[in-house]
Amino acid sequence: MREVAVLGIGQTQVDEHWGKSLKILAGEAALAALQDAGVDRADGIFVGNMMSGSANHQQHLGAYLSDWIGLPQSESVHIEAACGSGAAAFRCALMAVASGQMNIALAVGVEKMTDSPGPEITAELATAADADWEAGQGLSFVALNALIMRRYMWEFGWKHEHFAPFSINAHQNAIHNPFARFQEPLTEQGYQKAPMIADPINLMDASPMGDGAAAVLLVPVERLKRLDQSPLVKVIASSAATDTISIQNRRDATWLTAAEKSARDAYSQAGISPKEISLFELHDAFTIMAALSLEAAGFSERGQAPRLAMNGEIKPSGKIPISTRGGLKARGHPVGATGIYQIVEVVQQLRGLAGETQVPGARYGMAQNIGGSGSNIFVHILEAC
Amino acid sequence: MREVAVLGIGQTQVDEHWGKSLKILAGEAALAALQDAGVDRADGIFVGNMMSGSANHQQHLGAYLSDWIGLPQSESVHIEAACGSGAAAFRCALMAVASGQMNIALAVGVEKMTDSPGPEITAELATAADADWEAGQGLSFVALNALIMRRYMWEFGWKHEHFAPFSINAHQNAIHNPFARFQEPLTEQGYQKAPMIADPINLMDASPMGDGAAAVLLVPVERLKRLDQSPLVKVIASSAATDTISIQNRRDATWLTAAEKSARDAYSQAGISPKEISLFELHDAFTIMAALSLEAAGFSERGQAPRLAMNGEIKPSGKIPISTRGGLKARGHPVGATGIYQIVEVVQQLRGLAGETQVPGARYGMAQNIGGSGSNIFVHILEAC
Repeated sequence: MREVAVLGIGQTQVDEHWGKSLKILAGEAALAALQDAGVDRADGIFVGNMMSGSANHQQHLGAYLSDWIGLPQSESVHIEAACGSGAAAFRCALMAVASGQMNIALAVGVEKMTDSPGPEITAELATAADADWEAGQGLSFVALNALIMRRYMWEFGWKHEHFAPFSINAHQNAIHNPFARFQEPLTEQGYQKAPMIADPINLMDASPMGDGAAAVLLVPVERLKRLDQSPLVKVIASSAATDTISIQNRRDATWLTAAEKSARDAYSQAGISPKEISLFELHDAFTIMAALSLEAAGFSERGQAPRLAMNGEIKPSGKIPISTRGGLKARGHPVGATGIYQIVEVVQQLRGLAGETQVPGARYGMAQNIGGSGSNIFVHILEAC
Repeated sequence: MREVAVLGIGQTQVDEHWGKSLKILAGEAALAALQDAGVDRADGIFVGNMMSGSANHQQHLGAYLSDWIGLPQSESVHIEAACGSGAAAFRCALMAVASGQMNIALAVGVEKMTDSPGPEITAELATAADADWEAGQGLSFVALNALIMRRYMWEFGWKHEHFAPFSINAHQNAIHNPFARFQEPLTEQGYQKAPMIADPINLMDASPMGDGAAAVLLVPVERLKRLDQSPLVKVIASSAATDTISIQNRRDATWLTAAEKSARDAYSQAGISPKEISLFELHDAFTIMAALSLEAAGFSERGQAPRLAMNGEIKPSGKIPISTRGGLKARGHPVGATGIYQIVEVVQQLRGLAGETQVPGARYGMAQNIGGSGSNIFVHILEAC
C-alpha cells in the first residue's frame, strides 16, 4: 500500500447560496483544490453528498461534476454515509490512491440544503436515522440528539449551561475564518438565551444548515516529494467503524462505540497516542456530540468533557484544540461537505496557515466525521512532515 | 496491489417484493453471499443503491445494512452512480481489498422500486440525467434512450424489428434462471406487438422495474488459495470512465465513448483481447444500449450490432454470449442492484454452474454496468483459474 499525501485543498464559504446551484458550488471547490495543487486533471473523483436526490432532484453526482468541471475523462462516483459522506468520500479516494488504481484522486463534499424548504429538509435529514424505528415515529435528528444529551446530563450531573464553552469556542475561532458561515462571537448570555429547539438542545447547541462545498486532492507521497512541497502533509491513518443505526439498540446511548473503535484503529495505524494529537476537528453537530467524541477518542475521562471545555483546553492554545476554524457549529454544517471541510482545515493547520487560530507547532491533526447519531464514524490523522 | 478473488455470491429473485422491505432484501442477498463463502464477517460493506433516499425514505444504507445483518463492527458506506451504482460499489470494495485496507469486503446492490408509485419513480430515475438540461425539460429516461435509438436507426438503416433478437435472447436465457423476474419466452410477434412507450422504444425494448438485491464477497487471492476453492474466480480487470452527463453535449449520440474507454482499459489490465471474452453481461436497459455496448466494447463493427444479434452470435452458443441469465431485460433491472447481479451471473458462468445457459468452457467473463445514458460506465473482467 502506497503512502498518500494531500496536494491541494479548496472550499467555498458556507452560506445560504441562493444564487449558486449544486454544481456551481461543487465546481468552485473542486477547481480551487486543483489550482492549489497546480494540476489540471484527476484520475478519479469521489463526491460526498447526502441529499441531492431529494433536495436538488439530482443524483449521479459523480458524472455530473466531472462533466461540469471539464474532466469527463475522470471516473467518478458519489459516496453517501449521511453526515459522514464527506469523510467517506475522502476514505474511498484514499484507498484508490493507496491501492495504485489512481495517481490523482479528488474528494469533493457538497450539500445544497437551501433548495429544500424547511419542513422537507428536516424529513430528509431524518433519512440518516432508522426509517422504521426512529424517523417513522416522528423523531427528528435534533430530537435524537436531545434524548442523548438529556441522558448524559442526568448521568453525569451537568446542567445545560456547562455546554456553553463548546459553542463559544467554535464561534470565537470562526471569527478568523473567511469561509465560515458565522464570523461573529457568541457570549455566555447569547448561548443561554437562545430559543429552545428540542429540550435540552437550544439553537446555540446546534450547528446551522447551509450550502457549501470543499475539496481535497490526493496523490502518492513519492509524487509530492518530487514536487518538493513543504510541508508535506501525509495521511497517516484512515479508519471507520459503525454502530447500530438506531440509538434504542445501543447498550449505552451516552457512549460512542464507533468513535472509540475508529479512533483506536487510527492511533494504532499512526503509531501515536491521543496525547500527541495537535488538534482535533470533531463532529460538533450538537454540543453533546463534541463532548461524547472527546471522551470516546480518549481526550477526556468519561462524563468529564464539559470540564475540559470549561478549563479552556479546547481552545487553540489548549491541550486539545477543537473546531479551530469554527467547527460544524460556526463554520457551518452542509452535511455531505462537512467531512471534507474538516480535512481542509486540518491541512491549513498543518501548513501553518491558520492565522489567528493557528495551533502552535501543529504536527498531527485528526478529523472525525459522524454519519447518523454516532452510527458511522470516520477518522483520519494527517501529519506535517 | 493485491490480487482479488470472489469468494461468495448471493441474490434474491427480482420481482415486485411487496412483502419485503429494503433491508430484508439487502440482508437476504448479503447473508447468502456470506454463507456461500463460508465466512461470518466482513471488514467492510459497500452498498450500491440509487434511490432509497426518495423511494424508501432511507439514506445511510451502509450503517443501516451492517446493523441489520448483525455486523455492526464492519465499516460501511453507500455508493451511488445511478444505474451503475452496483458496479461502482463493487469497484470500491475491490480497491479496499486490493489496497490492503480490508481482507474481506462485501459489495451489496439493492433497489426497492415498488415503494415509490409509478409517476414518482419516473421522476426519480430521471435524477440520473442532467436536472437542468434533461430532466428539467421533461425528458424521462426512456425518452432519452428513444432519441438515441431513433438516431441510430436513421444513421445505420435499421428498422425497429431488427432489435428483436436482443430481447428474445434475454427472455430465452431467463427461462432457466430462477432468480429472473420473467422466466418466460418472448416471440418475434410478442416483441413487435408490444405497446409503444416512447417511439421507437416499445415495452419489449425496455427492461422492467423491480425489487431485488445481490451481493458478492471479495477476498485477497492468497486467502482463496489457502481455502483451496476450485475454480478460483479472480477479478483481473476493473475500470471506469465517464462521459458528459447529458447526451446533447456529445459529439455523437450513437457512440458510447465511456464504454469504449472503460473496455479498452479493462482489456489492457487483463492482457487479453475482446476475442478471448467468453461472455459479456452488458447493460441492456434498452435494446439500443445492448447494441451500442457491443460496438463500443469491440465485439461488432460500428452500426452492425443488430446483425450480430440476428446471426445468433449473442446466444450462449454464439461468439459473444450476452445476457446469459436474462440480462436487464428479463432477469430485471432493480437499478442499484443490477451491477452486482451481473457479477454474480459472471461468477455462476465461470464456476460452470449456469445450467441450461452455461457458456461452454467459459474462462473470461466481462460485466459492464452503465449509469445514466452512457455517462458513467464500469467494466470488470473475471477469470476462472
